[in-house]
Amino acid sequence: MDKQPIRLTETVKKGGCAAKLPAGQLRKVLQNLSIPKPASLAVGTETMDDACLWDLGDGRYMIQTLDFFTPIVDDARSFGAIAAANALSDVYAMGGEPKVALTILAFPTAHLPLELLQPLMEGALERITAAGACLGGGHSIDDETLKLGFSVTGFVDKSEAWTNAGAKAGDALILTKALGTGTLMSALKSKKASSEWIDEAIQSMTQLNQVRDLIMGDKINAATDVTGFGLAGHCLQMCRASGVKATIRLSSLPVLAGAMECLNEEILNKAHYSNAAYVDDNVSYSEATASQRWLCVDPQTSGGLLLSVPQSSAQAVLEKIKARFAHAEIIGRIEAGEASIVFEG
Amino acid sequence: MDKQPIRLTETVKKGGCAAKLPAGQLRKVLQNLSIPKPASLAVGTETMDDACLWDLGDGRYMIQTLDFFTPIVDDARSFGAIAAANALSDVYAMGGEPKVALTILAFPTAHLPLELLQPLMEGALERITAAGACLGGGHSIDDETLKLGFSVTGFVDKSEAWTNAGAKAGDALILTKALGTGTLMSALKSKKASSEWIDEAIQSMTQLNQVRDLIMGDKINAATDVTGFGLAGHCLQMCRASGVKATIRLSSLPVLAGAMECLNEEILNKAHYSNAAYVDDNVSYSEATASQRWLCVDPQTSGGLLLSVPQSSAQAVLEKIKARFAHAEIIGRIEAGEASIVFEG
Repeated sequence: MDKQPIRLTETVKKGGCAAKLPAGQLRKVLQNLSIPKPASLAVGTETMDDACLWDLGDGRYMIQTLDFFTPIVDDARSFGAIAAANALSDVYAMGGEPKVALTILAFPTAHLPLELLQPLMEGALERITAAGACLGGGHSIDDETLKLGFSVTGFVDKSEAWTNAGAKAGDALILTKALGTGTLMSALKSKKASSEWIDEAIQSMTQLNQVRDLIMGDKINAATDVTGFGLAGHCLQMCRASGVKATIRLSSLPVLAGAMECLNEEILNKAHYSNAAYVDDNVSYSEATASQRWLCVDPQTSGGLLLSVPQSSAQAVLEKIKARFAHAEIIGRIEAGEASIVFEG
Repeated sequence: MDKQPIRLTETVKKGGCAAKLPAGQLRKVLQNLSIPKPASLAVGTETMDDACLWDLGDGRYMIQTLDFFTPIVDDARSFGAIAAANALSDVYAMGGEPKVALTILAFPTAHLPLELLQPLMEGALERITAAGACLGGGHSIDDETLKLGFSVTGFVDKSEAWTNAGAKAGDALILTKALGTGTLMSALKSKKASSEWIDEAIQSMTQLNQVRDLIMGDKINAATDVTGFGLAGHCLQMCRASGVKATIRLSSLPVLAGAMECLNEEILNKAHYSNAAYVDDNVSYSEATASQRWLCVDPQTSGGLLLSVPQSSAQAVLEKIKARFAHAEIIGRIEAGEASIVFEG
């Protein structure tokens, strides 16, 4: 009997950041909780930012974040690499450098051979090491389905920190990676994706969001990374935290190969719907096709950084970023107004 | 129709730290991985310590740890409190003060009402606040079963840090909490536990391992917290990290009410067996009953600290600890020898 290779995506119902709890429901629960915020906690849960900032008292912030999810690809090494790149990204989104990662692992010993841990962790370790960080430990449990992620700590000089709360009217919005991992990974799961599409998407998801070193000295007013809540969800959180409005040009959005084909075929997952509901009251579209609307809420795993940059330097910043992120584009602008997004043609 | 209250333990197969991946298997996987250790990482994965220590370069270590598990009790508020106390404990085990916690949440939206998040997080927040720490964020996913935990960061002056690697021949071993949560929680799940037993166990599991402030200035050669791998498992890890041998007196072990009754009835879970297998080659018993052997490998959730203290000051240290931890006892001693444990009558 031939031994079929294990396809990790077949072991779960939904993968990657698409498995996040719906943003709207999460926001409601958080609003009902009284969460104390000591003076040293410069950024906590209040702005739904990518990570928290803790004042170390020596001119630096400690950046702490965590992320974990179910398999989004079939190959263990790639899944490990994506899980690591995705978790490290939140530190980059605050302008910092990741230093220590701890593993969050749920492993189904009843359904998968423990040997899979080797390529899984090797894939993750390669990315963690490439980021200049190290693995400091972790916690693992036996579970029904595989989940992998990391809690990552990094550091940034206080004067250099980025948050999602500083976007200003007149800024241009730069997105560093192409969109579409949500629909493409759903297509992979239902065997409707070409291997070329998946290979490019994996390349994108494993790329570290190391943007900072390309644009040292350039003014960045706000930053976030685009993950499970999609471009619209994370941009809206930035607008809320900053008290501004965003206008995004659909024609400028970078898109992974195959993503529009998949969206045209309505290859969606639950997060497309919950993301759409989350932003519904605060987003408007003019002349958008159904597929373009889905793209705006497509749940990204290890997506790009969304940077809010003064208009005057935006083109120069984009050119520097393009040296490492070929798909990076200026996708829109920030204006004064109620927290909302207008997607225009 | 009467609406029955939700019993969280009925929603999972096994709860708390009993759901950890078997220590022996985990150790094998870790040994096969090449994990780089930069100079700033004073303690990483190499000694299977409770948390990692990162040199901040200003006289302090950053302590980073994480822990998460399935429901071990039926009440959401208590489960939240236990999950928080358990995660915070690893920072205490390194001699530090916890400062920032991030939530690790897997929630079964298909099986449990989202409203449960409110008491769950309130229970956790109360403990985090009591510890002098704060909630800085987190990550949540939709999953088949409920899991809750925290990634916690704390700090400690370098000269004050405790590790599991400093135990010395001649030390006395102090355990700060009574044993038995593993069998008692299995008894709860199968409805064989009295409510008095469970109440006392919950009280023990929610108690913060704040020991440090009671014994400031006292010399502690090594410390660890006793959790999923049981007293034998965590003590053996301390022996391995320190290159010493431990002798533990069974008659001195503090035990939670009902735990021996449950062990006499062989109310066990999978972790009892995997913990026993993990320590089997390095542990010997003289005159131990079957129940006493199970107690030594009983998987603890939010268990006590195991401290290795110079014999000369052990009694004085114990008296100070007893002011807050009534069950604390001197349970044995450290000797020169191969890493191993002798349990004597």
